[in-house]
Amino acid sequence: MSAGNRQIVLVRNPSGEFDPDTFEIRHAPIPRPGKGEFLVRNLYLSLDPANRLWAAPFDSYVERVPLGQVMRGFTVSQVIESRHPKFKAGDLVQGMDGWQDYAVSNGVNYNQEGKIDTWNIRGIVKAGLPISSALSVLGTTGLSACVGMLSLGMPRRGQTVLVSGAAGAVGQIAGQLAKIRGCRTVGIAGGPQKCRLLRRVYGYDAAIDYKRGDLDAAIAKACPRGVDVYFDNVGGDTLNVALTHLAMAARVIICGAISQYTTAETQGIQGPSNYTYLLFRRARMEGFIVLDHYVKERARMEADLIRWIRRGRLHWRDEIVDGLENAPVAVNRLYRGANMGKLTVKIADPQELPRGPGRAAVAKRKATKKRLSRAGAGR
Amino acid sequence: MSAGNRQIVLVRNPSGEFDPDTFEIRHAPIPRPGKGEFLVRNLYLSLDPANRLWAAPFDSYVERVPLGQVMRGFTVSQVIESRHPKFKAGDLVQGMDGWQDYAVSNGVNYNQEGKIDTWNIRGIVKAGLPISSALSVLGTTGLSACVGMLSLGMPRRGQTVLVSGAAGAVGQIAGQLAKIRGCRTVGIAGGPQKCRLLRRVYGYDAAIDYKRGDLDAAIAKACPRGVDVYFDNVGGDTLNVALTHLAMAARVIICGAISQYTTAETQGIQGPSNYTYLLFRRARMEGFIVLDHYVKERARMEADLIRWIRRGRLHWRDEIVDGLENAPVAVNRLYRGANMGKLTVKIADPQELPRGPGRAAVAKRKATKKRLSRAGAGR
Repeated sequence: MSAGNRQIVLVRNPSGEFDPDTFEIRHAPIPRPGKGEFLVRNLYLSLDPANRLWAAPFDSYVERVPLGQVMRGFTVSQVIESRHPKFKAGDLVQGMDGWQDYAVSNGVNYNQEGKIDTWNIRGIVKAGLPISSALSVLGTTGLSACVGMLSLGMPRRGQTVLVSGAAGAVGQIAGQLAKIRGCRTVGIAGGPQKCRLLRRVYGYDAAIDYKRGDLDAAIAKACPRGVDVYFDNVGGDTLNVALTHLAMAARVIICGAISQYTTAETQGIQGPSNYTYLLFRRARMEGFIVLDHYVKERARMEADLIRWIRRGRLHWRDEIVDGLENAPVAVNRLYRGANMGKLTVKIADPQELPRGPGRAAVAKRKATKKRLSRAGAGR
Repeated sequence: MSAGNRQIVLVRNPSGEFDPDTFEIRHAPIPRPGKGEFLVRNLYLSLDPANRLWAAPFDSYVERVPLGQVMRGFTVSQVIESRHPKFKAGDLVQGMDGWQDYAVSNGVNYNQEGKIDTWNIRGIVKAGLPISSALSVLGTTGLSACVGMLSLGMPRRGQTVLVSGAAGAVGQIAGQLAKIRGCRTVGIAGGPQKCRLLRRVYGYDAAIDYKRGDLDAAIAKACPRGVDVYFDNVGGDTLNVALTHLAMAARVIICGAISQYTTAETQGIQGPSNYTYLLFRRARMEGFIVLDHYVKERARMEADLIRWIRRGRLHWRDEIVDGLENAPVAVNRLYRGANMGKLTVKIADPQELPRGPGRAAVAKRKATKKRLSRAGAGR
């Protein structure tokens, strides 16, 4: 490992998938934290469908990443040096420290009011869960499932819940949360392997392989009483067909539109012509961004999720790719539906820091590290 | 006037606007009410954008009108003979008694649980308002504005509210309700005459003439802080452009999609490709059908509306066409945007009935009739 800071820089807006011209690797010096800042070493990098939106030449729910800057990304990191009152060297945190080895942060990543939302993952470590889970079931994707399915979808016992991209990072959790609420859950995914996973591991009552065609008939068969909550990760035809199956007063949760991200610039986004079913079925379609909910709700949601994991009611799958340098190629697995579960890049292991706290703290950190390596990465 | 019952029967599903082949006039005998039923004489017939949906060869929020049956329509009627415990001869009621002179009803029109929703309009008569208003500001369209704007839109003081079809039957009321709530109101309509009406009579802060082009720039100019509530009556391009102007946590109320009704079968419905702004702006798009709200909420909504009318805070315009036989041609005015305000057909005046109650009741009814003719039809 180089002593410097490897940075993956966005140099060209992709058209279609990310391609070899999209990024350049730059070697920069390790930055130093100013007053009120801290330096982190990134350990895990989250690869998310939204990455493609951020790299587009237009603003979406956040501003685009400017050309020439380090690619934006959610991370799990270790604090190396701190001049920030809330973080100290050795802390393991989840933030948004980008596609690079090191970053300086002031603890504010996404909060629009400037509140600190870098998240100390001590609760995850204490529960014996892998630190990479702070990017998946206990991170952006699991928390998206919580906000979208539970707070907005409000599924009630006996209702039918349909999830697209159901074997993906958010979908896998969303279906299980609906199951915990006592719903009939139906998942849509691509291919027999994912569909088996939906039924056998994530407890879906029915799985629909959209690659087999006739999605309309398949949804009708799997959801004979209509769809009370449709949790959409994909957009396009899948959304449009699902709208015609809404039950009265249904909720459609727009979590993402992955089928549209790589073609938005060239072909435009496909509008759901069946949006009139919102009228016909007195239904609601709602979008959300999980980052809005972090400051107020993350602690509660994390506690809920950990409780369900411990009781064996919530399972998840991480797909971990080794090496920061592989992120630019690996990210395209998302747009091809090649990933099973949460796609994450491992950059480094947590380190025992050479300086800082006294003996007791060091001993404690050693024990922590042991737990981490026992829990491993992914499940 | 013929002694029989003129009925306008749907004989062919239109493609495009209603055309001369769509309907036939049939002369039938006046029906007799069975036990639990009552006979009405229709006085006013409501012409609504949804008429075109009902005449299509597919079901929408209600079942299609079967070929060979009397065209469905909201009506104000007078009870002629009653074998129903809740209605008596002479009552003026608002129901759904179709494009015909006479009908027999059991009092259940739209309620899905079979509850009685034929509405005695004594409150409207008592307030000295024209009985035709039971089809406009105090009927389906005014109540749609109430449910959509107030219950679902939830506009708050200082927010910006955008209404399409703003000079139409629902739009004219929706904007004024937002104004009563203390909002900045912006209306979209076609042509300078309607735009003047929006500003001068309905109190819109700004009016946008969509026929002048560049709707995007016009909305940006009129709504510099974005749109908190978008109340959509038209669909198509207008909806799609409006979505890009949503403020954070905005509410999009889908009340109708009149631009799409006459082309749905031939060209399909235009899906709003900018639905992704629901995600970007953490916004909600919701449809509703006012008929769902009648049994529980009509009395309260009517009282609210009458109070605002009396205080001079709510104005409306009815466009009344004389003669049932003119309904099939007049209805197309809606799809051309040719109407100003609520389009209604006058079929007959209320009658003094030849038999029935004693002297006092007759005297009371005479006084009522006098009030009606003073109030006139429309405003």
